[in-house]
Amino acid sequence: MDKLSKSKQAAIERLRKKEFSLDKLWLKIIQKDKIALGEAITYIESSAPAHQAIADELLNRAIKKRRDECLKIGVTGTPGVGKSTFINVYAQLLDEKGFSVAVLAIDPSSRQSGGSILGDKTRMIDIQSRENIFVRPSPSGKQLGGVSYKTREVILLCEAAGFDRILVETVGVGQSETAVHQMTDVFLLLMLPGAGDELQGIKRGIMEMADILIVHKADGVRESLARASARDYAHALHLFPSNNSFWNPKVLTASSEPPVGTEKIHTTIEEYFSKALENGFLFQKRNEQSLLWFQESLEIQLLTFIQSDKQLNLLYKSQMEKVKNNTIPPFLAARKIIESLHRNG
Amino acid sequence: MDKLSKSKQAAIERLRKKEFSLDKLWLKIIQKDKIALGEAITYIESSAPAHQAIADELLNRAIKKRRDECLKIGVTGTPGVGKSTFINVYAQLLDEKGFSVAVLAIDPSSRQSGGSILGDKTRMIDIQSRENIFVRPSPSGKQLGGVSYKTREVILLCEAAGFDRILVETVGVGQSETAVHQMTDVFLLLMLPGAGDELQGIKRGIMEMADILIVHKADGVRESLARASARDYAHALHLFPSNNSFWNPKVLTASSEPPVGTEKIHTTIEEYFSKALENGFLFQKRNEQSLLWFQESLEIQLLTFIQSDKQLNLLYKSQMEKVKNNTIPPFLAARKIIESLHRNG
Repeated sequence: MDKLSKSKQAAIERLRKKEFSLDKLWLKIIQKDKIALGEAITYIESSAPAHQAIADELLNRAIKKRRDECLKIGVTGTPGVGKSTFINVYAQLLDEKGFSVAVLAIDPSSRQSGGSILGDKTRMIDIQSRENIFVRPSPSGKQLGGVSYKTREVILLCEAAGFDRILVETVGVGQSETAVHQMTDVFLLLMLPGAGDELQGIKRGIMEMADILIVHKADGVRESLARASARDYAHALHLFPSNNSFWNPKVLTASSEPPVGTEKIHTTIEEYFSKALENGFLFQKRNEQSLLWFQESLEIQLLTFIQSDKQLNLLYKSQMEKVKNNTIPPFLAARKIIESLHRNG
Repeated sequence: MDKLSKSKQAAIERLRKKEFSLDKLWLKIIQKDKIALGEAITYIESSAPAHQAIADELLNRAIKKRRDECLKIGVTGTPGVGKSTFINVYAQLLDEKGFSVAVLAIDPSSRQSGGSILGDKTRMIDIQSRENIFVRPSPSGKQLGGVSYKTREVILLCEAAGFDRILVETVGVGQSETAVHQMTDVFLLLMLPGAGDELQGIKRGIMEMADILIVHKADGVRESLARASARDYAHALHLFPSNNSFWNPKVLTASSEPPVGTEKIHTTIEEYFSKALENGFLFQKRNEQSLLWFQESLEIQLLTFIQSDKQLNLLYKSQMEKVKNNTIPPFLAARKIIESLHRNG
């Protein structure tokens, strides 16, 4: 056996071993093994080609195990509104009702601030120790427009693993809400009591996506204020009807220390879920989300493809410069790039 | 001279003549000649290669003549709110103040309904006859996601032609508002008196983009109702702060038969304009819009490129089918397509 054949043989051996461990890993994942899930997510978030190959295969298996009955819940709100505390309380309630729960996070700002959501682990300790709750803060990963690129993949993995409810937390001040909205079934917005207070910094664009608005920290002296805020928001939402044809956004009040109103939030979410399943809305929404993911992947990967080719990247950069300087119409700049592409083979 | 040379010669001759007429056409355009503008827009909207070549060259010249002092104003609102009447009145006021005006329209629904906005020409006759007002209803053209693909090009042409104000009308119920928002400097939303009335069908997502909200038809018995509505909207907008950092959306009331409140709308728009110019916001916004146009062109043209290649199109369609059936993760489906691309030469 010559040197090349030996090295080939070794490579095949390595692949075979990998295949074996991948099967084992997969088996653990679909048993909701937390260590296996953590390992798989590491592969998903890694940029090493070997890790990516494993991630691809895992997600290839995961997509075939998508389950209608898995509800993905987006949770947003400005820092200080008590998202982590709320998620802690809500996840416990779900657990007690027999639902298994995965908690994920998108934090586009963590790189700048050095912090991360779900980083306040002290609040999360309660639920992390529970057998049927899996908590994973998601690093920013590869980003485009401030949005974590791999969160969809992690959600898919958790869906396939068999979790009944997936909570996706986002920070509520950036562009990541649109992304989370596009990968979840229902969208919760947490607000502070004191409605007119513009310091809350919630943009109208985020408001627009909310299926359920929760005035949080409605406890003690803030309780009556919270109720007034809820009325204000309900009125405002009434003026701006939802894009969603079957569901009028609900406004609820709640507190997490101690938990008040969580049961009502739960029944409202479940009401949304069963209605959306029944009338076909959810089926359609999930289908659209898949196609959007496809389309966005095409865009991102085209850009990656262009940037990884030296000549294409030079062309891309020079055209962008011309666009910035108003010396070429943007559609003509784009055409010069597309015209330099060709089908392979 | 052989046959081929003769035909080449003729082609060169035709090109030379075209070049000549293109120069003449361009000269007329920058003198705001309405017939020349109409002809140029026909080329822009045509899909014939010869017309497209002319359009490309015109727009190549136009981009270098972009003018900071040209203000592009988006106008939206549901059918029946009186957009055409309002635009008619507002364009006249602008004309009387010495501004030249181009009025354009996006109508994503015209194909379905068979109608078109600005189609109610009876109301437009007043202003069309004025020397410094150019009115052009834009056909849907090549569409992607219900959005007219060529409106940006037409706006660019009108900007280069030297119009001081460009009004872009859109129908207010679909996705075209986002498109218009992305190609204009300031965004007007017309509403009917009777604020709580959800029948208006204005989505929260559209509300979010409005810089100036106008409660229209505030006349006769509706006047006090309009004032109450304006207060309601102002309160609701206060709860949902704008994404725009320097400008808090204004709510005004107006009527167009007879014109009341148009002057106030004009001064508010001009106030927005001068502030946005002064603080650099508009410069930044226009720059972002150019880059977005570039990016969207890349996406649309990639799709066109894929669909025009038989094998690529087959691959594209089969991958999309797999995405729909949840048999492949969308990002992997996209990768299969991108991997089949290659740099030309």
